[in-house]
Amino acid sequence: MQSEIVSIGTEILMGQITDTNASWIAQQLPSLGIDLYWVSAVGDNVGRLVEVLQRAFSRSDLVICTGGLGPTEDDVTREAIAATMGEDIVLDPDLESTLRGHFARRGGSMPERNLKQATLIKSARALPNPRGTAPGWWVERGGHVLVAMPGVPHEMRHMWETQVVPRLKTVQGEVIIHSRLLKVIGLGESAAEERIRHLLKSSNPTIGTYAKEDGIHLRLTAKAESIEQASAMVHSLEAQVRAALGIHVYGADEDSLAGVVGQLLMEKGLTLASMESCTGGLVANVITNEPGSSAYFKGGLVTYSNAAKVAFGVPQATIDNFGAVSPETALDMAEAARRQLGSSVGLAVTGVAGPSELEGKPPGTVHVAVDVDGRRKALSPFFPVVREQMKRLTMLTALDLVRRTLLGTE
Amino acid sequence: MQSEIVSIGTEILMGQITDTNASWIAQQLPSLGIDLYWVSAVGDNVGRLVEVLQRAFSRSDLVICTGGLGPTEDDVTREAIAATMGEDIVLDPDLESTLRGHFARRGGSMPERNLKQATLIKSARALPNPRGTAPGWWVERGGHVLVAMPGVPHEMRHMWETQVVPRLKTVQGEVIIHSRLLKVIGLGESAAEERIRHLLKSSNPTIGTYAKEDGIHLRLTAKAESIEQASAMVHSLEAQVRAALGIHVYGADEDSLAGVVGQLLMEKGLTLASMESCTGGLVANVITNEPGSSAYFKGGLVTYSNAAKVAFGVPQATIDNFGAVSPETALDMAEAARRQLGSSVGLAVTGVAGPSELEGKPPGTVHVAVDVDGRRKALSPFFPVVREQMKRLTMLTALDLVRRTLLGTE
Repeated sequence: MQSEIVSIGTEILMGQITDTNASWIAQQLPSLGIDLYWVSAVGDNVGRLVEVLQRAFSRSDLVICTGGLGPTEDDVTREAIAATMGEDIVLDPDLESTLRGHFARRGGSMPERNLKQATLIKSARALPNPRGTAPGWWVERGGHVLVAMPGVPHEMRHMWETQVVPRLKTVQGEVIIHSRLLKVIGLGESAAEERIRHLLKSSNPTIGTYAKEDGIHLRLTAKAESIEQASAMVHSLEAQVRAALGIHVYGADEDSLAGVVGQLLMEKGLTLASMESCTGGLVANVITNEPGSSAYFKGGLVTYSNAAKVAFGVPQATIDNFGAVSPETALDMAEAARRQLGSSVGLAVTGVAGPSELEGKPPGTVHVAVDVDGRRKALSPFFPVVREQMKRLTMLTALDLVRRTLLGTE
Repeated sequence: MQSEIVSIGTEILMGQITDTNASWIAQQLPSLGIDLYWVSAVGDNVGRLVEVLQRAFSRSDLVICTGGLGPTEDDVTREAIAATMGEDIVLDPDLESTLRGHFARRGGSMPERNLKQATLIKSARALPNPRGTAPGWWVERGGHVLVAMPGVPHEMRHMWETQVVPRLKTVQGEVIIHSRLLKVIGLGESAAEERIRHLLKSSNPTIGTYAKEDGIHLRLTAKAESIEQASAMVHSLEAQVRAALGIHVYGADEDSLAGVVGQLLMEKGLTLASMESCTGGLVANVITNEPGSSAYFKGGLVTYSNAAKVAFGVPQATIDNFGAVSPETALDMAEAARRQLGSSVGLAVTGVAGPSELEGKPPGTVHVAVDVDGRRKALSPFFPVVREQMKRLTMLTALDLVRRTLLGTE
């Protein structure tokens, strides 16, 4: 099945919003076995929109539109679809009563201009939108399908998952697709691919690799006639990938590195505290982005000066002898964090975020350390990149050091 | 001048990358006085690309392409432009020697497949790319212009600013456009627009309003025949906007809220320390994203438990009497941060990030406090939104409280 996406809205052309809907939908299509050939953005102009829709509907099996379903004069998607199909727009009594009910439940009466959100053409079925006032349209004619969804991302995504995907499966026939995401840290994209090169050639199941902010993502996807068969294929491939990448696979699907670390701490009945210099609070911030982190995170110290490090328990002698940016200071910071906040695990980061050097050490110099009830370990990577990226890579290295230590592999 | 953007690359259609180039270019066009009517994305396929380029070149004055200029077989933008123009591709000796020089300086010889990056058609001028190996193309014919730039964002942006914009100004004639961005905090988009409604109708200079992660952005843009005239128009409009929005305007152009706070601290010879509960290190992280922040930021404490708050100097009695989530505790945390880290200014945050309530207080409850050498002030906003957004809004409120206090308006 060949598809195309049409994003509708002048605010996209003005650069006022980035069209994240198109890329989100593009990501959903491969696992449905649907090819995407074209993506366009058009403003709120009936003439230009009709031109785009006519071309799209004639060349593609599936046209996916987002935006332009609001109640105002600017919202012209319905008019353009009607013109493309050569059909008249009529008020649908069921949609009208649903819409009036929506406003009544909020204690107001419906502005009359919202009535256009209760209209349809003969070929269209309405797609319910429990999250907003704009129903979608599903138009099927001559073996081609056109879908129109609202532009508000969370409304669109909910409609896609609950309304559009099930209908697409009916149209396409029963091909079951199952996929799983594995998340990898401590290996670059090419190093990861090198290790699983023998698995990359397979055409079913497939592996896609993507470099992301939190490591390398591997998407494993299988097509089969039943869900059992598809998930067995993915399961077997996952075992091979894990065998090849070992400890570098830190999670799957919705897992985050900070969440995985939190899970490990809870399983072992441990608590965590941090002392950060160059990451300046980023490690604590990411840890506390996890709901429930207060169960295991005792707190953090951002010791941006040597005086602060010493005030919170780092021996002055360590800084004098080795410098504030040294493995020795990182190790003493981890221990100090643990003692200061009364946790079983201490995590520490020191380094040079730049732009200037410090103690004669160049920007990008990093030392991270962990202390688990007195067992201490430090790592010294080098990240000579811009400030915020250096902080991010250092944060990931620090969390991964805790993970590996708790797993007993460091 | 009517323009359109064509983004080229199968990875965009696969959802592997989000096309940020198109929205970045879209943002540049209004201040050049260029209208954008169409945006399309196409895969690495000569046939489909030629179809798109032919339509684009015939209907638009300016066609802006990104991507597909690399050295591999997949990179077909040059072939597609040549086919669109009906011209032959020829090797350009100057480009070839530049390219071979590029590789020689890196101590290697050039792979022969890179030769395609030294080709041109008769109508095309090469646009130098000092940041990569792919020169751009500038094609002018029959009053229409087609520009092809590399897809790597930083190469594309550099080429746009140094090569494309000056040429566009030549083609368009001498219209000088000057613009300035004002950044606003503590007002929603509609409240901000309400206050400057009398200024929004002007068609030259214009004001565009955008809701962003760090507040509301107002872009002031003037067109005139000289830069003096254009900047005088913007300057006069800026004065009116500042009069209407007052203290809510925290900065302009590249200013960040944390940077503005840092600047104020340095001007007054003050230093800052923080104690955070619900923001979990985000405040310290944002402060330390500013290069040079070590000059005024003494450090931060993330006190995720009551025990940690008390250990760092918050009186147990305050927590017992008022709860950990209270203005009183926030004020004592600010003072404790100041004393503990020896700074002149203490900043503190406490609240309920959710998903569960705390001390009977619902998620979204927030108290921020500042202590400047003993002068103390607390604010209690309510942000009942998802965890990460709640943390972000709280961080902005806290930094803004410091800013307003230092400016003497709180």
